[in-house]
Amino acid sequence: MSAAESLYTPERIAAAREAAASLGLDALVITPGAELRYLTGYDAHASERLTALVVPATGPAALIVPRLERPLAENSPLPGVGVSLTDYIDGEDPYALLAAHLDEHLDGKNRVLGAAERMWAAHWHGIENAVHGARLALAGTVVNPMRMVKNAAEIAELGRAAGAIDRVHARMGEWLHPGRTEREVAADIAAAIIEEGHTAVSFVIVASGPNGASPHHGVSDRVIERGEPVVVDIGGTVASGYGSDCTRTYSIGEPPADFTAYYGALKAAHQAGVDAVRPGVTAASVDAATRAVLTDAGYGEYFTHRTGHGIGLDGHEAPYIVSTDETVLTPGMTFSIEPGVYLPGRHGARIEDIVVCTEEGVTRLDILPTEVTVL
Amino acid sequence: MSAAESLYTPERIAAAREAAASLGLDALVITPGAELRYLTGYDAHASERLTALVVPATGPAALIVPRLERPLAENSPLPGVGVSLTDYIDGEDPYALLAAHLDEHLDGKNRVLGAAERMWAAHWHGIENAVHGARLALAGTVVNPMRMVKNAAEIAELGRAAGAIDRVHARMGEWLHPGRTEREVAADIAAAIIEEGHTAVSFVIVASGPNGASPHHGVSDRVIERGEPVVVDIGGTVASGYGSDCTRTYSIGEPPADFTAYYGALKAAHQAGVDAVRPGVTAASVDAATRAVLTDAGYGEYFTHRTGHGIGLDGHEAPYIVSTDETVLTPGMTFSIEPGVYLPGRHGARIEDIVVCTEEGVTRLDILPTEVTVL
Repeated sequence: MSAAESLYTPERIAAAREAAASLGLDALVITPGAELRYLTGYDAHASERLTALVVPATGPAALIVPRLERPLAENSPLPGVGVSLTDYIDGEDPYALLAAHLDEHLDGKNRVLGAAERMWAAHWHGIENAVHGARLALAGTVVNPMRMVKNAAEIAELGRAAGAIDRVHARMGEWLHPGRTEREVAADIAAAIIEEGHTAVSFVIVASGPNGASPHHGVSDRVIERGEPVVVDIGGTVASGYGSDCTRTYSIGEPPADFTAYYGALKAAHQAGVDAVRPGVTAASVDAATRAVLTDAGYGEYFTHRTGHGIGLDGHEAPYIVSTDETVLTPGMTFSIEPGVYLPGRHGARIEDIVVCTEEGVTRLDILPTEVTVL
Repeated sequence: MSAAESLYTPERIAAAREAAASLGLDALVITPGAELRYLTGYDAHASERLTALVVPATGPAALIVPRLERPLAENSPLPGVGVSLTDYIDGEDPYALLAAHLDEHLDGKNRVLGAAERMWAAHWHGIENAVHGARLALAGTVVNPMRMVKNAAEIAELGRAAGAIDRVHARMGEWLHPGRTEREVAADIAAAIIEEGHTAVSFVIVASGPNGASPHHGVSDRVIERGEPVVVDIGGTVASGYGSDCTRTYSIGEPPADFTAYYGALKAAHQAGVDAVRPGVTAASVDAATRAVLTDAGYGEYFTHRTGHGIGLDGHEAPYIVSTDETVLTPGMTFSIEPGVYLPGRHGARIEDIVVCTEEGVTRLDILPTEVTVL
């Protein structure tokens, strides 16, 4: 996986260590997830057996790893970024190993530890009991500002994923037919997500008719009928772990008049959101620009969620395009613009693309038309 | 999903509340995962948006839920077990809502909260900052003793899953051929996991030749050759969320002599583990009985992991069949027996079945022969 490995450099851990020290953290403790993969290239799975990258603010990085998974860590890019391995067998106490590494490389007690944002409570509990005066802080304050700004290799991976998901949407007419259930259509979409170049399916939402008014509806055994709008929100990850996430709304035959009435405003809101993206503006301002179009058109109360979320090694990550996120956009930030309108009991619509903030303003990674597609 | 719903009863929350109070916990705070599904039937997905079941030791249970997912919670069994819903929109503070529910129903401050074992650190951090004197304890001390002992409906679901995964193993000759890569074989297995009755694939390990010596090897692009042993460890979940997990080791043509030398001891160790299961003995004693056979045969150092793990709504849960787990087995406990032998650089083997501790002793849910299958 040479393309993936080129994403991981020893500089990331060095930068994280420096940022941790400057923020008053004594160490970072990173369990499996996007932060571990970002810092080391090791794509580990979370489990009850502790795997943790420990980065003391004043010492070398080590990975605590179950012995049975040591070969996986050794065969990942992790050893190449200067991380040593310490393994343990089932029944041994990994939290004591973690505490020992901190004791060896840190002075003093009362340690503030920056934990992975998705660390399991059971692991934090173990760490809290093993490490003198451990106090919980979040590694995100250190790692999120790094992860938010993608380099060219990362943007290329996101572009690869976006291209693959766009190809799946372009084939929707093969599967989305009246008389089929949402679940049947979703199974075909899931297969196509892999066929078109992803290595894993992240999610498939097929929300027909009134189910379209439930933004996070997954799938059901509901039979899709002629004349119904269908919201299709799908995503996967490519081999390097970067993801896609794209929503289009379809109509099986001509859509109802009350759907057409709001779809134009939704399309304009999506465009306003994309157009608002440029360096120097806040994430909140992009949400405001998007929301204003729907509010002015009288649909503000039916747009019941934020405008978008960052995307990278996590499907949802910073920055969030929401009224409370004052992050100032800079070139390299990647996120969704996904306004929706949801009429309870009737139907709904959403348009979602991933965009990149660039020096010049914005580039869309998903490039399909945003019109409703009538099948 | 009427079969699934019949698994969930209001009595579980009442029992958990009572156990929490008796253990000195002021409340349980349960984020998405097996514990939430066990207590309420709501199969929520974990995300940066807080979803949390709050069960004060002296008050009514409430679910804090993002508004866009309220329809999912409403359509789950959760309202039927007496849980009220409190929703919030993006940008509002869900931790304040959680704190308010505790303030309303608990006296005093300095609250000890039993958190879901897999709660994200970011959510615990938010709770710690919002709830007066919040101190972390684990909900597992309350919920694990309940979850460990399965009722008849749960055992039936585990049996349904085991039957499905056994049927996949029985078809292995369709896919496992020399000249194919591990990844190609795994893709066919994944499709069959669904075809045979699961609704989701949990994991697929296809570890050929030297990869078989890495217990948690997933898949690779390695081409499988004639004369090689191949470890196939696979699992999925059925609609109710209960899982399967079964390992068999295959050989493409006659296996090497050094493989045959240890396989007999491995088969005997697996049988000794199964035979050791009965009410009143400890989990640790089952590990010891299994391990003794391999140690006596001279392969102890090559059996590098515990003997097994509980299984239910989580793929790995209590009890753990390991030297340090003194849980006394009782009827209704379900777990794997999965000894392995791993010769670094050469090959490995593992045999894994799910068993149930019964009044009479033990019942195997996976019922395939444990001989190596030569394809």
